[in-house]
Amino acid sequence: MRDAYHEELDSIGDSLVEMARLVGSAIGRATTAMLDADLQLAENVIAADEKVDTLQRELETKAINLLARQQPVATDLRIVVTSLRMSADLERSGDLAQHVAKVARLRYPDSAVPRDLHATILEMGQLAQRLMAKTAEILITKDVDLALQLEQDDDAIDLLHRTLFQHLMDDRWKHGIETAVDVTLLGRYYERFADHAVSVARRIVYLVTGDYADEVDPAAAAGGVAEGITEGTQPENA
Amino acid sequence: MRDAYHEELDSIGDSLVEMARLVGSAIGRATTAMLDADLQLAENVIAADEKVDTLQRELETKAINLLARQQPVATDLRIVVTSLRMSADLERSGDLAQHVAKVARLRYPDSAVPRDLHATILEMGQLAQRLMAKTAEILITKDVDLALQLEQDDDAIDLLHRTLFQHLMDDRWKHGIETAVDVTLLGRYYERFADHAVSVARRIVYLVTGDYADEVDPAAAAGGVAEGITEGTQPENA
Repeated sequence: MRDAYHEELDSIGDSLVEMARLVGSAIGRATTAMLDADLQLAENVIAADEKVDTLQRELETKAINLLARQQPVATDLRIVVTSLRMSADLERSGDLAQHVAKVARLRYPDSAVPRDLHATILEMGQLAQRLMAKTAEILITKDVDLALQLEQDDDAIDLLHRTLFQHLMDDRWKHGIETAVDVTLLGRYYERFADHAVSVARRIVYLVTGDYADEVDPAAAAGGVAEGITEGTQPENA
Repeated sequence: MRDAYHEELDSIGDSLVEMARLVGSAIGRATTAMLDADLQLAENVIAADEKVDTLQRELETKAINLLARQQPVATDLRIVVTSLRMSADLERSGDLAQHVAKVARLRYPDSAVPRDLHATILEMGQLAQRLMAKTAEILITKDVDLALQLEQDDDAIDLLHRTLFQHLMDDRWKHGIETAVDVTLLGRYYERFADHAVSVARRIVYLVTGDYADEVDPAAAAGGVAEGITEGTQPENA
């Protein structure tokens, strides 16, 4: 009985790693699809999100069965409950990658992103993908130090996000409203994606260290986002 | 023992209702703060979100304690796990109300929303608040019919969101990029707020009817949003 139990617990962990792998790949592909205006790649990302959703549903069923049949307590109970939360973060990251791909599809055969912002968006996409790759690694290794590093990567994304907004607010912006709207939403998608990766990492830190102070609810992370953006555009009002 | 158990279960339900009440009030106040450029009201909403976050943390602790000590199975287990999910939706809704209030604060003493969009934003705010009030009611009554009505209110918000974007894309838009960015984000905040309210209602339908088909993961709901917006702006690409 005890063996089947640990197998089930491992299987939940494996699903989380696989979800992180899939959504990390998705955000990278979505970014490429957008910058290259590659319709097929965009469609590919959009369709592939189904797999992430399926994994989440399966994970949820496994977790509930495990709670019902094995009735874990203490640490194991926290692992199961936290896994449910992490799977929701990862599933939502998948949606955000899909949103990026949908913007790419919508603007095809054009690129949704003007040339002078390609490098910024590329860097956001790369950072987001790297954050998620590290999150997958942390899910496997439970490496707390690596989890803390993630915060710096997240700061780097916030900074890029602010750059993007300064660009938008610049009087010399010449790409019109439609592109401004696209870029506003894209910036938000990348930053929310990163928030979810960081949220997963923080939950692992909490599981490992049991330190509540390190566990930041997604609320706090998200609050920083919108605040960061808008205040970045008018520092005197910050 | 059994009595204490049901008291704990009820207490979790009460916390959810209280969270829904608080975030419903917050989105209404945030909308008023923005339209009236009322700084004090905006600050009030921003500060009040702390209460929602505290309620969620308490709910999480209660749920984990209940799982550990009472080891519920079957329906009760689903109620506890689903309550954790619902509390995350409600907590996130609180953040979104706070984001609206922060835009209001940032643009003070101006209103972030141009006059010709006040009625549209007011209606989005009212619908969002009403959706959440209905969600609170559904949490109490478990009224499945009311939960299904919510879908129509959500469609109404989607429609307003699309109107907002058509307005933005109109050649006659004369409010500049900064306001376009604000309005883009505001539209997204309201729509995500509504998505979370609907998500809570759907989870209750699932708990009551056990029908998986009715349970829609937030993924699907969210997917509709971005898609809806952008496709609305270029129907020929939809």
